[in-house]
Amino acid sequence: MSELFGAVLARGPVAAAVGDPAWVRALLEAEAALAVAGARTGLVPAAAAARIAQVCRSLVPDPAELGAAAADTGNPVVPLVRQLEAAAGPEAGSYVHRGATSQDVMDTAMVLVARRAVDLVLADLAACADAASRLAAAHRCTVQAGRTLLQQAVPTTFGLKAAGWLVALDGAAVRLQVVRAGLPAQLGGAVGTLSAAGPDGLALLDAYAAELGLTAPVVPWHTLRLPVADLAGALGTAAGVLGKVALDVVLLAQTEVGEVAEGTPGRGGSSTMPHKRNAVAAVSARAAARRAPGLVATLLSCMEQEHERAAGAWHAEWRPLSELLASVGSAAAWTAECLGALQVDADRMRANLGAAGPETGAEAVAGALSDGLGRGVAHDLVAGLVRRARGGEGDLRALLLAQEQVAARLSAQDLDALLDPAAHTGCAGELVDRALRHRRQGSR
Amino acid sequence: MSELFGAVLARGPVAAAVGDPAWVRALLEAEAALAVAGARTGLVPAAAAARIAQVCRSLVPDPAELGAAAADTGNPVVPLVRQLEAAAGPEAGSYVHRGATSQDVMDTAMVLVARRAVDLVLADLAACADAASRLAAAHRCTVQAGRTLLQQAVPTTFGLKAAGWLVALDGAAVRLQVVRAGLPAQLGGAVGTLSAAGPDGLALLDAYAAELGLTAPVVPWHTLRLPVADLAGALGTAAGVLGKVALDVVLLAQTEVGEVAEGTPGRGGSSTMPHKRNAVAAVSARAAARRAPGLVATLLSCMEQEHERAAGAWHAEWRPLSELLASVGSAAAWTAECLGALQVDADRMRANLGAAGPETGAEAVAGALSDGLGRGVAHDLVAGLVRRARGGEGDLRALLLAQEQVAARLSAQDLDALLDPAAHTGCAGELVDRALRHRRQGSR
Amino acid sequence: MSELFGAVLARGPVAAAVGDPAWVRALLEAEAALAVAGARTGLVPAAAAARIAQVCRSLVPDPAELGAAAADTGNPVVPLVRQLEAAAGPEAGSYVHRGATSQDVMDTAMVLVARRAVDLVLADLAACADAASRLAAAHRCTVQAGRTLLQQAVPTTFGLKAAGWLVALDGAAVRLQVVRAGLPAQLGGAVGTLSAAGPDGLALLDAYAAELGLTAPVVPWHTLRLPVADLAGALGTAAGVLGKVALDVVLLAQTEVGEVAEGTPGRGGSSTMPHKRNAVAAVSARAAARRAPGLVATLLSCMEQEHERAAGAWHAEWRPLSELLASVGSAAAWTAECLGALQVDADRMRANLGAAGPETGAEAVAGALSDGLGRGVAHDLVAGLVRRARGGEGDLRALLLAQEQVAARLSAQDLDALLDPAAHTGCAGELVDRALRHRRQGSR
Amino acid sequence: MSELFGAVLARGPVAAAVGDPAWVRALLEAEAALAVAGARTGLVPAAAAARIAQVCRSLVPDPAELGAAAADTGNPVVPLVRQLEAAAGPEAGSYVHRGATSQDVMDTAMVLVARRAVDLVLADLAACADAASRLAAAHRCTVQAGRTLLQQAVPTTFGLKAAGWLVALDGAAVRLQVVRAGLPAQLGGAVGTLSAAGPDGLALLDAYAAELGLTAPVVPWHTLRLPVADLAGALGTAAGVLGKVALDVVLLAQTEVGEVAEGTPGRGGSSTMPHKRNAVAAVSARAAARRAPGLVATLLSCMEQEHERAAGAWHAEWRPLSELLASVGSAAAWTAECLGALQVDADRMRANLGAAGPETGAEAVAGALSDGLGRGVAHDLVAGLVRRARGGEGDLRALLLAQEQVAARLSAQDLDALLDPAAHTGCAGELVDRALRHRRQGSR
Repeated sequence: MSELFGAVLARGPVAAAVGDPAWVRALLEAEAALAVAGARTGLVPAAAAARIAQVCRSLVPDPAELGAAAADTGNPVVPLVRQLEAAAGPEAGSYVHRGATSQDVMDTAMVLVARRAVDLVLADLAACADAASRLAAAHRCTVQAGRTLLQQAVPTTFGLKAAGWLVALDGAAVRLQVVRAGLPAQLGGAVGTLSAAGPDGLALLDAYAAELGLTAPVVPWHTLRLPVADLAGALGTAAGVLGKVALDVVLLAQTEVGEVAEGTPGRGGSSTMPHKRNAVAAVSARAAARRAPGLVATLLSCMEQEHERAAGAWHAEWRPLSELLASVGSAAAWTAECLGALQVDADRMRANLGAAGPETGAEAVAGALSDGLGRGVAHDLVAGLVRRARGGEGDLRALLLAQEQVAARLSAQDLDALLDPAAHTGCAGELVDRALRHRRQGSR
Repeated sequence: MSELFGAVLARGPVAAAVGDPAWVRALLEAEAALAVAGARTGLVPAAAAARIAQVCRSLVPDPAELGAAAADTGNPVVPLVRQLEAAAGPEAGSYVHRGATSQDVMDTAMVLVARRAVDLVLADLAACADAASRLAAAHRCTVQAGRTLLQQAVPTTFGLKAAGWLVALDGAAVRLQVVRAGLPAQLGGAVGTLSAAGPDGLALLDAYAAELGLTAPVVPWHTLRLPVADLAGALGTAAGVLGKVALDVVLLAQTEVGEVAEGTPGRGGSSTMPHKRNAVAAVSARAAARRAPGLVATLLSCMEQEHERAAGAWHAEWRPLSELLASVGSAAAWTAECLGALQVDADRMRANLGAAGPETGAEAVAGALSDGLGRGVAHDLVAGLVRRARGGEGDLRALLLAQEQVAARLSAQDLDALLDPAAHTGCAGELVDRALRHRRQGSR
Repeated sequence: MSELFGAVLARGPVAAAVGDPAWVRALLEAEAALAVAGARTGLVPAAAAARIAQVCRSLVPDPAELGAAAADTGNPVVPLVRQLEAAAGPEAGSYVHRGATSQDVMDTAMVLVARRAVDLVLADLAACADAASRLAAAHRCTVQAGRTLLQQAVPTTFGLKAAGWLVALDGAAVRLQVVRAGLPAQLGGAVGTLSAAGPDGLALLDAYAAELGLTAPVVPWHTLRLPVADLAGALGTAAGVLGKVALDVVLLAQTEVGEVAEGTPGRGGSSTMPHKRNAVAAVSARAAARRAPGLVATLLSCMEQEHERAAGAWHAEWRPLSELLASVGSAAAWTAECLGALQVDADRMRANLGAAGPETGAEAVAGALSDGLGRGVAHDLVAGLVRRARGGEGDLRALLLAQEQVAARLSAQDLDALLDPAAHTGCAGELVDRALRHRRQGSR
Repeated sequence: MSELFGAVLARGPVAAAVGDPAWVRALLEAEAALAVAGARTGLVPAAAAARIAQVCRSLVPDPAELGAAAADTGNPVVPLVRQLEAAAGPEAGSYVHRGATSQDVMDTAMVLVARRAVDLVLADLAACADAASRLAAAHRCTVQAGRTLLQQAVPTTFGLKAAGWLVALDGAAVRLQVVRAGLPAQLGGAVGTLSAAGPDGLALLDAYAAELGLTAPVVPWHTLRLPVADLAGALGTAAGVLGKVALDVVLLAQTEVGEVAEGTPGRGGSSTMPHKRNAVAAVSARAAARRAPGLVATLLSCMEQEHERAAGAWHAEWRPLSELLASVGSAAAWTAECLGALQVDADRMRANLGAAGPETGAEAVAGALSDGLGRGVAHDLVAGLVRRARGGEGDLRALLLAQEQVAARLSAQDLDALLDPAAHTGCAGELVDRALRHRRQGSR
């Protein structure tokens, strides 16, 4: 990760969780678990296993040194094992890495790194959802223009908009949790037969997975990359949800809309324009989220792997997965900050709706006329009057009242009720309640 | 879909299931369900609902006509509703589309189209998995070179390779089934408040979903596109698995490897080379699978949708989702044909392994020497002898026996056992059993 | 292409130009050119070549029939050649396809299809650029809020915005023209050696390319896919430019902004909201443009092709390239319609700028104070006063005048001049002139 | 960039050229050029400009510190300018950044970083092409099996394969050179009007670009991202070419093919299998190249930018562009190493071709029979005999001679000539010459 761009593009704790030291730590945990599991199945003497596990805990290899040595074999496990052997001494050393191939340790480490990163993403997604649920509850009845194709349509409430965010954020979290729960350990030896795993390879595989708290795979997945695809899919989905929330915020924060503003003090100034107050958190969340689809595509295209170990597609996963985790983590961290301090201007929401005039009630009028006139006729009649009102022939309300077919069916009072935005938020409040109830009942 | 390329690139039944007539049918089903649900909640008179449902069943609108009319509003629902109104007559006609907006019907139709297409994909995935399980069982002990980075490594069995395919194919199917089971109906009206849905909008939403056998969403998901992301992720994963299987087949079918061949009669000729017998099914499966990552990326990038209806990103989903379904369907159909008639040449597998000489046993020798010499020393010692053998200094077996440290630890008999490929397939057989057991116990 | 969605998502003439009949026509043109070139190099008797060329002109094969037969070999050239042979009669028939392999004809046809489609895209891009240049000239001095991060920043002119569109649209066109000019014919025979091309294969290659008005490649490019990558890159770039223009339009057309509207009569109604007037053309352009990045990624990932003919990646190009051409064509057609009839509300532009109050002049004030106070101090001072004005402590102008460091440097008159938006459009007009001049001087 | 993975995935000099210090240096160069240009147009006193330029040369800001401060405004230019002002002192300090907005400096820095990185990529591409041209010349006549769909087809020469690599590598380089030559400076001020650029903004823009050796844009391109798209397209194309070359190498290096091997000493060992000699360079090149399509898609999707500065899509470019440069640089570095020391086994090439038996001559036989029998009949006749030979009915040569229609047209001698692979490499040699000539004549 770049330090120059990290605070903007790799915000939050995930960037560190996918950094070099975290990867090295995870590699060592995998080697330790392998030794301990080996001791359980008789592959490794108990003393050697204990010694290896202890060395794995205390050794702090230099990532740069491992990385440089990795060029000869294509991955950093070979030099790491050499260091472990040396540190463990001649006796225990010969049992280091016993039963495994490099990819076993790399894949398991990748899974461990991803699990921790996902936990951090989940924490920020939960913070986002908490903020969204507070906004939904607080603004259950705050009337706001519903907007379709970026045009004011008919009224909704800001609470329902926030409830939608809530449901989607929780939905993204659930998908990540499912993937997290199924993350498998990797162990298969050179070609996935567990040929170096001693008398009871399957027991070793199961013990190793248990030791790490990971799922034991049915068969090794060296070139069957469902776990990577699962992570990619769930992270891509989370990015999409975060991007949607952030997009709504930047649109609502536009100067001409002004319905929300980001409230974090000191944030959002401009180098040249003293009056600017940019939605920096939402903007940065969008920037991070937008990287996800391309990274997901890369990971999915890497599923095409040859035979028992891929000639490139495996190595190609490491950086995109780390980048994807960091990007989604960044989007979640920024969105949590954005929603957590969001300033909502209910007056402006109401005013914006009024500015569009009584037109947003046109659907309701057409609906009321539908029973008698038929949906199509009613729609065309009202649309015609809207066009005339826009053309300057008069106020829509007056034009409606002057129309015979309308007057025959609706009194002025009826019409005013139909044209009042606040009266037409439908089930917005009930839907907010439904979303909050769904959350309490444990959508997550 | 193109008819010129369809037989190669959109094979199997999915292409038709995502074609124009299927979409129109699904749109009509959604309108019918809406009327029936409306009758349950008092929004629509029972007779009108019955009439609308009947018209929806019998009407066969011309997709081209609907499409042409769609340009004015951006989607084909508006002209479809006009046709329905006309067909239903003035009385029932005024109840058509009551409570819904165009996107409600489009999204629900998309879900219905996807559900049917996914069922067809699942059927072909099941056929693939059946074939893989048969291959796994039949070749449980068929020794084959395990290959890493496209180099022969140590022995495995073809049964284990097929068992890996099986587990991955079933895994992809499980993911699709989970997504299928959660597919939601869409109903929210203009901005998702159910404002035109009458006295009890939530009841209408639930009845509508029930009528279609779909999940009722917590809130409308007009711009919260988790269901599309779910489909994209699971389909992208399935494509990745199918691409991996097809890649293994084309690699094994190479002239110089020749361990498998496609057995469908009449397939695989060349326009200019009479002797060619191409693995057309696997090649075509790869071609279809390779389209998935880009399509998934498009669908994920379309999650960034504005407010209550997206200004473009929604419309952008329709074709990529249809293309993705058809591509994955095509890959599954081709792979089912490929695996179903796969010819396996066990003799060639054994011969190829032998051709690499005793080298594939080098790992086993190094392993046997590790206890005494330490892993690193043993590895380097054997690697040195392999280099000398390749350099023409003699046969690897002879060089090993002549080596003091080896001779001190291993008899000629020991060595022959270690160098026999068949003796070193590790737990391959047990892993095959584990995969077949897992399947019987209902992985799917 | 789907007829149901085509009018929205595959608008304009490109969709037909990449359809099945167009591909079949192009295949026949390639075969005709091959025969004619063969006659020039002595590979084919002149009479046979004439007969083949004539048959290629008159034959109208059924795409569905060719497609069905394609499944056995993986492409439709084999059955097409059989039809040609039959139609040409026994004598001439034996010279059909002489010297070529299926991929030669397929690739050449792809290039021919792409060339025609690109011409159509270029025509619509030119229409877009013409409209943009008219807007730029007409609104050279129409003051409008410049907006950064979706916040009003400082003034610009609508003419400069349109000039930016113009430069980018022309830039995209130039890139497509360069690619179009370099499109190569394909001819190499089975493995690219021209082994069946008779005594002078290179002459055949050059004559064939000349006959089609295409570039003669240095070597056959069966698996060296630069031409496809070139098309992908230039089309993806064009889509990006069109998407940017359309995004600006939908943002400016927002109800709360209202600075532009689409003017095509009858377009943009809503099925339920009679008052809506959606920017359907811009929305549809965005929908089409958004598909491009994923399709480009697919085409680039298909560059990884095996040896002398790819085992899947080649076949995988056909549909994405057609879809990409149709999508960009659709985006260009919609944008041409959108810009061609764009209604610009200069009064609203001015009013929106005023609504933000004198704040948009804050940069100018800070700039004027910089000489004396230093940039940082001046910026912080003005920003502080903006904050106080927003906090309700008074009017920004009054606060500025009351500030000692300001008052010491600026008179009330100076300040008013600085706070007048119209006075601060910088070089907007000159930049418009520069863009128009650049165009006249033949950027294209 | 990760140090742990860098040696494998970010090899060569590009990784450092896109690292934090390189970005900071480029930011400072942009600020220096701005001051110098300002002095030319009278915006900045000459002494102040000299002082600023000197400070820009000597200052070494801490990327981490800048990065941390960047979070408040969204980019690191604001804190950098503060540091520059402080270092330049009160007098000159007030002229720092005069006329520019943050994005002007960021975009220009990005272009400078990209230009340097592209130069390094070009150097490694040239090394690759040099190696390919040496291989093409040396193996102009080295017979090798041409392979289509991974099946042996008809003979080619290894020289022609290498010539294809050469042409494609040079083609990729040419495309990068064109993009490099057109890279523009960025300068427009807050909203692209050059409003803070003093009396002659356009002159400032042109002087600034000239100072940096960059193209002066027609108008600012803050949200018109053609230069980024150009880089993305050309880099994606280069990655595709490198991936193709590396794929051919790993396929030729397969144990069962064994026609090439990587020759770098010490590379390619395995942690567990002493006999392995992996094509680590080609594998690593593939791993790097495979990341490109997804990164290109991200950059293209970021072209959709709002108004005068994007709310996220701009920030989203920084990391993908750096990653793309580093990935392509890595692929080029690895491929240069791979081709530079490639060991070619001409005997094995010949032997592999022979192992397929006389079948690879079948096309030639069918061709010879075409004149009399017609292409279709001749093809079917030979294909039938191939099938019978494979079915064990006899040797293909014998079967052919026994066939009446063959015997009537071909003597045994004719047949032997037709069945000799070496006689059927067509124009392979001439095509090699053409490729080498094309290179000498300055394709690059």
